[in-house]
Amino acid sequence: MATAPSVSYSMTVRLEVPASGTAVSQLTTAVESSGGSVTGLDVTASGHEKLRIDVTIAASSTAHADEIVSKLRGIEGVTLGKVSDRTFLMHLGGKIEMQSKHPIRNRDDLSMVYTPGVARVCMAIADNPEDARRLTIKRNSVAVVTDGSAVLGLGNIGPKAALPVMEGKAALFKRFAGIDAWPLCLDTQDTDAIVEIVKAIAPGFAGINLEDISAPRCFEIEARLREALDIPVFHDDQHGTAIVVLAALTNALRVVGKKIEDVRVVMSGAGAAGTAILKLLLAAGAERAVVADIHGVVHAGRTDLVDAAPDSPLRWIADNTNPENLTGTLKEAVRDADVFIGVSAPNVLDGDDIAAMADDAIVFALANPDPEVDPGEARRTAAVVATGRSDFPNQINNVLVFPGVFRGLLDAQSRTVNTEMMLAAATALADVVSADELNRNYIIPSVFNDKVAGAVAGAVRDAARAAGESAEAAMSGPVPPAAG
Amino acid sequence: MATAPSVSYSMTVRLEVPASGTAVSQLTTAVESSGGSVTGLDVTASGHEKLRIDVTIAASSTAHADEIVSKLRGIEGVTLGKVSDRTFLMHLGGKIEMQSKHPIRNRDDLSMVYTPGVARVCMAIADNPEDARRLTIKRNSVAVVTDGSAVLGLGNIGPKAALPVMEGKAALFKRFAGIDAWPLCLDTQDTDAIVEIVKAIAPGFAGINLEDISAPRCFEIEARLREALDIPVFHDDQHGTAIVVLAALTNALRVVGKKIEDVRVVMSGAGAAGTAILKLLLAAGAERAVVADIHGVVHAGRTDLVDAAPDSPLRWIADNTNPENLTGTLKEAVRDADVFIGVSAPNVLDGDDIAAMADDAIVFALANPDPEVDPGEARRTAAVVATGRSDFPNQINNVLVFPGVFRGLLDAQSRTVNTEMMLAAATALADVVSADELNRNYIIPSVFNDKVAGAVAGAVRDAARAAGESAEAAMSGPVPPAAG
Repeated sequence: MATAPSVSYSMTVRLEVPASGTAVSQLTTAVESSGGSVTGLDVTASGHEKLRIDVTIAASSTAHADEIVSKLRGIEGVTLGKVSDRTFLMHLGGKIEMQSKHPIRNRDDLSMVYTPGVARVCMAIADNPEDARRLTIKRNSVAVVTDGSAVLGLGNIGPKAALPVMEGKAALFKRFAGIDAWPLCLDTQDTDAIVEIVKAIAPGFAGINLEDISAPRCFEIEARLREALDIPVFHDDQHGTAIVVLAALTNALRVVGKKIEDVRVVMSGAGAAGTAILKLLLAAGAERAVVADIHGVVHAGRTDLVDAAPDSPLRWIADNTNPENLTGTLKEAVRDADVFIGVSAPNVLDGDDIAAMADDAIVFALANPDPEVDPGEARRTAAVVATGRSDFPNQINNVLVFPGVFRGLLDAQSRTVNTEMMLAAATALADVVSADELNRNYIIPSVFNDKVAGAVAGAVRDAARAAGESAEAAMSGPVPPAAG
Repeated sequence: MATAPSVSYSMTVRLEVPASGTAVSQLTTAVESSGGSVTGLDVTASGHEKLRIDVTIAASSTAHADEIVSKLRGIEGVTLGKVSDRTFLMHLGGKIEMQSKHPIRNRDDLSMVYTPGVARVCMAIADNPEDARRLTIKRNSVAVVTDGSAVLGLGNIGPKAALPVMEGKAALFKRFAGIDAWPLCLDTQDTDAIVEIVKAIAPGFAGINLEDISAPRCFEIEARLREALDIPVFHDDQHGTAIVVLAALTNALRVVGKKIEDVRVVMSGAGAAGTAILKLLLAAGAERAVVADIHGVVHAGRTDLVDAAPDSPLRWIADNTNPENLTGTLKEAVRDADVFIGVSAPNVLDGDDIAAMADDAIVFALANPDPEVDPGEARRTAAVVATGRSDFPNQINNVLVFPGVFRGLLDAQSRTVNTEMMLAAATALADVVSADELNRNYIIPSVFNDKVAGAVAGAVRDAARAAGESAEAAMSGPVPPAAG
């Protein structure tokens, strides 16, 4: 799995080269012979003697980028200027900002946006607090909350280092669903403290998106917040992943003509994502799920489970999966299985393991950036293969889910998010792929498919209204009527 | 002090009137004879028989607006349509939003804004946390934090009802200083909890603006946060008010040719604003300050102070003011005083009290909306009168201060805000009014004077750098160099 040059390792190099001669062609040759690719070449100044050229180059790693730069430096007659990392440049000063919706041009504007006019709006909300959903940013605002304990695959890097991810998340909320999200990166990893903080900041938001909080704390934090708050609380690493996996599995099963209640699903990984996927698959009708963790298949008799507390997550898995009472290793469990879903670690399986699965096997190898099994190997025998990577078909990406889910919750002014809403989201996402389009290389739509967010939002909104969890009815009468 | 029609009680009324006849002139006559003013009149549909007209009307209160509407309803041939409250309309859905700085058009954009590219930025910050000030929104972000306990003059209306004020504040931060502020309205009024919450959310912000938190809790909250955090913490109700008052007083003293160390300043109000004004006046050189609260002049022998704790705010005032050891009532203390500063309650003084002040008296009657003394009465004998109201000369308005102060603190990446920075802000604000412009009706510039924020910001930035409180030096080397 050699990595191709990627825009996420993209740089712009400023060079001065002689105006005559072959220096320009030498540049591109040098980049390409080093395995990079030239994605842009601008002459930014031209004289009789010299040209100034900005070359934008995609590399496959930081080391690779350094290597390309030193090749360029070696070309006769070339003077190397600034080297700019495009990804870092995009992050300078942050990726999001706050904007006022109304211009404040004069004293009249000021007296409506701020004092004294604002006082009447405050009093209207004091009289009927539910009006905050109509007269403030609350209705369209989501807090993206992390403690920096499990950021991407980078681990416990803390709140400041997590901020670029949370800003990106906020940008995606806006891009795909028009939602105003603001990151809150917390300088504590204490469960009680996080619960108290999120409860306290809730009045200004219509939803809480928990992000990159490590297991098992994330389970308790989410459960306690759902109990305490009258706005939906959604841990995207759990439920966003679960919804997109269920949607993809729904379509993969359609491709191979099997039913969820019949197939043996073997999962690798019992962390936050794995547990949430498992629960949603069971809610969707899966009857033969088996989970393996680093110690092998989870079953009631496993030595580390005999003494486990009755409310431990692993105990729950043992009690609710594996009806055939399999034991042993992941590799043993995968034999003759219909579906493999990995949310664990790189290369825990090989091509032979996949070949030993049942006919028309489905393989979701979602560890990032290196999947549980080489997807090229898996595709030799499996019917459908999906990964978390954008450079293979069937990318399983949470961006397909969280914007639409929150859009639906906010549109319904839902007080909660429940399993029915998540199942509705998964079905809606799966159904964006029409019967005509569906095939082994297209079980899930692209992130940029513009039907996705609306379809997911509509399904979630309807499910929230049907569940009677909408706050819509609680607002006061028609003061003020909208103009026009 | 009859209230004039104001845009903050402004409505748009949709009417259908006969196309012929005098209905239109009857409309404007009806509004004006009721004491309202027509600020806009748009014919939005015109036919042979009927015209549809949107009339925008300023009233002086909600009751007054209702009265005008019923007058309009009474005009023969007129059909009343929707009545829209302009201030409420501006608040529908909130006044601020989140925007992404970069378009996310395709997979390349996504891979830089979000995964996988963002991971390198995260790791750069994990290696050097100070880089969060360069590579994230932190450098330009301010949290506007309230518990809703002392909102405007409305009292303890809670976090949801406070949100419109905090949104307005955020909008002003952007409008006047380009700062990205986000409101956090806390569902707790417990001092310890608020301190813990603000400490926890600090990593994503470069400054904390505390707002509308009641005394005496606000003193402890601010003091503990300043001790704990490496970003500046500024309670605008205290320090914003203190800075603008000192600036106005500086210019008022210039008008009358007196010096701050010579004048007797009598203050009414020992709450959050009063205490902060007092401390800043003392730091600026005032030597003869006297404070009165609801029980009269504060002096060391007052019965309620004999048993006060040594660290109580009132004890501090008694120990640090009133060198002439005045006793008695506010009215008594004001006699022969040079300066009166009220941040207390309406109508505690009358014209005779002001007439009994020293020659060339200065009166700042800042209670809102109704001042400590009728400003018209005060102007009969005082040399300079200022209020918090926009319908009299010399409006003392925090909007003159907080945007520039935070701009300066953020530009210097200051870890704190101290008295020297506040004194510098006051001096800079006072100096925006040139010697040519200065007179008894122009001691403080307009909120819309475009020199104000820059002047205040520059002074604060320089003071912060001089204080050695800047984090600027702590960032890592020149990775990534900016392009071009």
